[in-house]
Amino acid sequence: MAFHSTIGKSIPRIDGLEKVMGKSMYIEDIKLPGMLYGKILRSPYAHARIIGIDTSRAEKLSGVKGVITGREVSGQRYGVLLRDQEVLPTDKVRYIGEKVAAVAAATPEIAEEAIAFIKVEYDELPAVFDPLAAMKPAGPVLHEGLNSYQPGGIFGMVDPSTLEGNICGYAIHQRGDIEQGLAESDLIIENTYTTPFVHQAYLEPHGAIAQVEPDGGITVWTSTQGTFVTRAMLNQIFNLPLNRIRVIPTAIGGGFGGKAIPLVEHICILLAQKTNHPVKIIMTRKEEFIDSTPRHPVTITLETGVKKDGTLAALRSKVIMDSGAYAHMGPSTANRAALITQGPYRIPHIKLEGYCVYTNKVGGGAFRAPGFPQATFAIESQIDIIAEQVGIDPLEIRLKNGLRDGDISFAGERLKKSSFHRVLKELAERIEWGKEKPAKNRGLGLACGQWNVMGMPASATIKVEEDGTVTVLTGTVDLTGSNTVFAQIVAEELKIPLGSIRVVTGDTDTAGFSPVSGGSMITYNMGNVVRLAAQDIRRQLFDLASKRLDAKPEDMEIEDGQVFLKGSPEKRLSLGQLSAISMFSGSGVIIGRGSTAPLLPHLVFCAQAAEVEIDPQTGQVTLISLVASQDVGFAINPGIVEGQIQGGVAQGAGFALSEKMVIDQGKVLNTTLAEYRVPTALDLPQIHTLLIEQPSDWGPFGVKGVGEPPTVPTAAAIANAIYNATGVRVYHLPITPEALYQAIKSSRQNKTTKTQVSSKH
Amino acid sequence: MAFHSTIGKSIPRIDGLEKVMGKSMYIEDIKLPGMLYGKILRSPYAHARIIGIDTSRAEKLSGVKGVITGREVSGQRYGVLLRDQEVLPTDKVRYIGEKVAAVAAATPEIAEEAIAFIKVEYDELPAVFDPLAAMKPAGPVLHEGLNSYQPGGIFGMVDPSTLEGNICGYAIHQRGDIEQGLAESDLIIENTYTTPFVHQAYLEPHGAIAQVEPDGGITVWTSTQGTFVTRAMLNQIFNLPLNRIRVIPTAIGGGFGGKAIPLVEHICILLAQKTNHPVKIIMTRKEEFIDSTPRHPVTITLETGVKKDGTLAALRSKVIMDSGAYAHMGPSTANRAALITQGPYRIPHIKLEGYCVYTNKVGGGAFRAPGFPQATFAIESQIDIIAEQVGIDPLEIRLKNGLRDGDISFAGERLKKSSFHRVLKELAERIEWGKEKPAKNRGLGLACGQWNVMGMPASATIKVEEDGTVTVLTGTVDLTGSNTVFAQIVAEELKIPLGSIRVVTGDTDTAGFSPVSGGSMITYNMGNVVRLAAQDIRRQLFDLASKRLDAKPEDMEIEDGQVFLKGSPEKRLSLGQLSAISMFSGSGVIIGRGSTAPLLPHLVFCAQAAEVEIDPQTGQVTLISLVASQDVGFAINPGIVEGQIQGGVAQGAGFALSEKMVIDQGKVLNTTLAEYRVPTALDLPQIHTLLIEQPSDWGPFGVKGVGEPPTVPTAAAIANAIYNATGVRVYHLPITPEALYQAIKSSRQNKTTKTQVSSKH
Repeated sequence: MAFHSTIGKSIPRIDGLEKVMGKSMYIEDIKLPGMLYGKILRSPYAHARIIGIDTSRAEKLSGVKGVITGREVSGQRYGVLLRDQEVLPTDKVRYIGEKVAAVAAATPEIAEEAIAFIKVEYDELPAVFDPLAAMKPAGPVLHEGLNSYQPGGIFGMVDPSTLEGNICGYAIHQRGDIEQGLAESDLIIENTYTTPFVHQAYLEPHGAIAQVEPDGGITVWTSTQGTFVTRAMLNQIFNLPLNRIRVIPTAIGGGFGGKAIPLVEHICILLAQKTNHPVKIIMTRKEEFIDSTPRHPVTITLETGVKKDGTLAALRSKVIMDSGAYAHMGPSTANRAALITQGPYRIPHIKLEGYCVYTNKVGGGAFRAPGFPQATFAIESQIDIIAEQVGIDPLEIRLKNGLRDGDISFAGERLKKSSFHRVLKELAERIEWGKEKPAKNRGLGLACGQWNVMGMPASATIKVEEDGTVTVLTGTVDLTGSNTVFAQIVAEELKIPLGSIRVVTGDTDTAGFSPVSGGSMITYNMGNVVRLAAQDIRRQLFDLASKRLDAKPEDMEIEDGQVFLKGSPEKRLSLGQLSAISMFSGSGVIIGRGSTAPLLPHLVFCAQAAEVEIDPQTGQVTLISLVASQDVGFAINPGIVEGQIQGGVAQGAGFALSEKMVIDQGKVLNTTLAEYRVPTALDLPQIHTLLIEQPSDWGPFGVKGVGEPPTVPTAAAIANAIYNATGVRVYHLPITPEALYQAIKSSRQNKTTKTQVSSKH
Repeated sequence: MAFHSTIGKSIPRIDGLEKVMGKSMYIEDIKLPGMLYGKILRSPYAHARIIGIDTSRAEKLSGVKGVITGREVSGQRYGVLLRDQEVLPTDKVRYIGEKVAAVAAATPEIAEEAIAFIKVEYDELPAVFDPLAAMKPAGPVLHEGLNSYQPGGIFGMVDPSTLEGNICGYAIHQRGDIEQGLAESDLIIENTYTTPFVHQAYLEPHGAIAQVEPDGGITVWTSTQGTFVTRAMLNQIFNLPLNRIRVIPTAIGGGFGGKAIPLVEHICILLAQKTNHPVKIIMTRKEEFIDSTPRHPVTITLETGVKKDGTLAALRSKVIMDSGAYAHMGPSTANRAALITQGPYRIPHIKLEGYCVYTNKVGGGAFRAPGFPQATFAIESQIDIIAEQVGIDPLEIRLKNGLRDGDISFAGERLKKSSFHRVLKELAERIEWGKEKPAKNRGLGLACGQWNVMGMPASATIKVEEDGTVTVLTGTVDLTGSNTVFAQIVAEELKIPLGSIRVVTGDTDTAGFSPVSGGSMITYNMGNVVRLAAQDIRRQLFDLASKRLDAKPEDMEIEDGQVFLKGSPEKRLSLGQLSAISMFSGSGVIIGRGSTAPLLPHLVFCAQAAEVEIDPQTGQVTLISLVASQDVGFAINPGIVEGQIQGGVAQGAGFALSEKMVIDQGKVLNTTLAEYRVPTALDLPQIHTLLIEQPSDWGPFGVKGVGEPPTVPTAAAIANAIYNATGVRVYHLPITPEALYQAIKSSRQNKTTKTQVSSKH
């Protein structure tokens, strides 16, 4: 690998000081002149017809500036894949917590008080909470107008032919002949796995401020992961030209997929339009739990056919995903989850089905690798069950069936340089898999994972200031250190000190299009255009310097902020000099431009190992060790990459052991971070990382996406380790002490496991 | 002339609604969390040594967060052409109103109170207020360290060899042989003219907010005409890299040159550094009058030699410019004023001298065409005196001597297409000059003017959004409608409706370099790069469309947001389609770039006529008619151009008749807009404009600079009209009723005018 001056180094985040000093400006910190505060009235019913809303008492309260209900904003619809949601409902409510009305007032307290003064007359309807029940023809239907809904078009569309009853999405994927595949198998193993609603639990709740401009345009300050996707969603709702919607990102206190889509922005806008004042809404933690976009619950049934040598032969899977009351991103997530039930394995015969089903609950949404952690928990538990049944080591069965060069990934990519085996083998070596039997009550588990990093359109500009310092402008929200990585890329390309580079996060007016900071897309796509823009700068500098130094551009070199003639370093011009020359007698201000259509998508493999210790008396699981191996392509900033992997594993551990939104008759019961158990530092061991660098052909310096994969296999690795420690298989997340205790107890009472195995021979 | 779709039309300002609805965000409207308010303690002495400053009592006042004095910020120096100013003085004060200390407190009231608690011990020094006295070797010296001062370098430099005593700038320009020229003249006419300190009187006072970033960088929100020049000045003071200083422009309530240079920004920064809070300072109107940068007073002596046929033969001129206590832009202004004493005329023998002299008064600065209105009042009064003396019509003598093709302008430009005669003749035709004798007590006067529009580095970017709407990003502060003009240029180049274009004013981080909005430079320089960026967009659109339509780029046409094949308009793609194609399968997000080194400078000519009516009993002058003829090259927005000319003429009328800062022993006595008399609508007649369109070779669509020229000749035209009405020549501005009454009275008493004429033959 070439010598790098700045990349490949664990440089501290350039925004670190700002963060630790509390200087970052969050949405809560921003006040506009004349700003009002908005509060939202929410449905107390899971399913009810709205008979009437009386806002008169609220409107009369001193300090109240405006009240909005569905009646007066009707016609404006909202939806990611399907426009199945009114911005405020006119007809009926479909979940407890659904927005019904909103108030703007001089203080948040007055707005809150006014909310209580709004009288809504409801006619309660029968509700359905279980997606399996919701799929049945009889029973409550959430969306009578399902077939009239328009596609959303923001992140793709829903196939209208799949819409029926409460089913808002259906996908099927087949390869080979599933019946033949199962018939040819030596063993068929069928199990059903479930995972619950899990919340992203970002530290900073959602918040936004909206202002209506005199020309009718809108300016929105918001804590979003993606200003351009927010703009596209607002454009869908308000039907304004894109350049009349200005989305200004604030510092963001975590997102994990939950801050990609407007939750309160459109309500702020409606209130601002009503009152002609800027309006701010900050959600409470309780509101976050009852009305945001947690990870979709799934029920996954896998019927796997396997040869007695452990070769996977066939898979029939069925994913039933609980969409909640609206489709949101559910249909595509169910589709992806169905695809991921095949794991990163070669299976000749498959039939994978994904259903997305409406229920009278808060809707699910994007949460780190949507669909993947759920499906991976299922298939990676299943693989261990199969391994035991056929008597093969869990490592061996994975190595045997893992995707190799020439195989086609779930996403349709024919793999050229599959890193599956390398990632898994290096993990096994690191943990000395199979060398020693774990101590009593201890167990070791493995699991593999994958993620498909998408290419997206991306753009960036860079300018050289009059003193030779360099300013990078992108529309990317820095969630995880991306600005630091951009600075490193520019420092590398221009061979200038990191300190002379400033990375600026523009808004949708000032910056060119950038993808949402999600899907592990940023360093891959935006890092690439930042690099192209820096190369554009270098080319301009070389052209200019070569003219001045009477040489050829290809004979120029750059180092330490100086452009010089190769071999004659005394013939040199500094960036500051070149900037001034260009400005005053060259081609003008030096502006570099990087812009591309989407790069090709690429598959990323990862594998993790967990060591656990079980207290059989209580069911308590202690995590002894977690090791994450991951193909990162190339780590521009290994420290940040490791941190991101550790964060993903931590979230995976929460998914495995403790996190669950407890919902009773549509009502979320645990609505505080005291009751909703995210793992803390005390719950976690040191998380070890193994960065495998199998360079991508397209990413800058070979980088691949990093953010999603580490949270994908963790729950399965832990479940497998628990099985290894206890001999008890738990099919339902989270594996709380209570759940494990009950499972151990019933396993002792009944020595046959629930695994249904049919031996054919 | 080609057919234009959008340019050449008087489209209302695109920010009009925002302005009239009070929605523009001025500096006063901006509040940051934790923001403090700063107030400044000012010197009560015109010249005094600082013995000591005791801030202890102020610091103890509850709510005070920090006090700064020169002692603790010493070493940081300030200066435009010469770094002759400490940011806060350590040694001595040099004018009444000079900043001595500053306080940041929780409220402006507390800060004000604290200011009164600071005890400064002064040792008063003899002061000098008259620049002629200050030039004498004896007497007070303001800057003992004059020869040790470093050059400022922001708008050029001072020749160190010219610094001596209180003289901070000296320039001399000679052509031919002045002695020979005077000797060969038939008549020599010598007069001395003076003009006073005149204030820009922008409606919005100066204000700024500064915040110190965790990395030591600075963010400044300010009401400035030029973010990049403010950044350069702050860079000079604080010695930070340019990309660590972010200057964010707010809406601006007038500038006229007075908001190009930091007045309070650096004090906000020092207080922010001291307190670690953002600090806001808004100047009061009184502070504006005692400590900003009004137009320099001048004493100009002209000794003109003329042939009896009216041919100008020689000019010896001496400009003594009162710089106030610091050099600021005085030396270059004195130099330019000296050059402008030759007017737009061919004079073979010249010796022009300009002195810039320190006095113990507030310093002068840039005010609309710095140096030109003063010198033009002198030369254009002188031309009328000469005309009368040699018995030629004032129009004829100007036409006879005016610059023609092949002549060299004061700025060194060899004129190719001089519009001097056209501008003047069309004015004369319009007013029917010479046709009728004015009625009793009425008079008609003419004057000519000029301005040299500079080329400056400039840059702009334009992006096409996903829906085909277009966003223009520049670093230009919109003072006079420039954003509207940019939109018109883009609409013209891309043949799209004006409404689909949004023009965004970036800050120094997000936008590329833009010149200060002054010097009539913006449409010429920035309009050009906006046009280049639009052409870059068009080229990209044509490339993309031609590929898709299987044609050549040169066969593409654009109209109504559609790119189509010439002659086959059905083969078309909309901008939205092309944007999407480019983003997803082309070369990426469409970003256009325009960037240039300075265009060549160009000379602009103008001429004005005034009709006045005099009340001989009171000396009151009523303006009956003002007509302004001006070569504007090409008027992209004639309505805005006319408005700008009318505004310039109005300011010229104030300069002529009423505006004067009354200063007694260094103390400004009239510090309110009630006492300082700016003309109101009631004082002014309809101002007629004649837009002469003699296209520039370099400006976009032929535009030339517009803003400065209209204020240049007005005072002379009015003075000449007053002479025409009364037979009384007034050499000193402003021609207040009192001044004119006295002049009429003394003229009746003594029938010889002050004009000194020596007849040689």
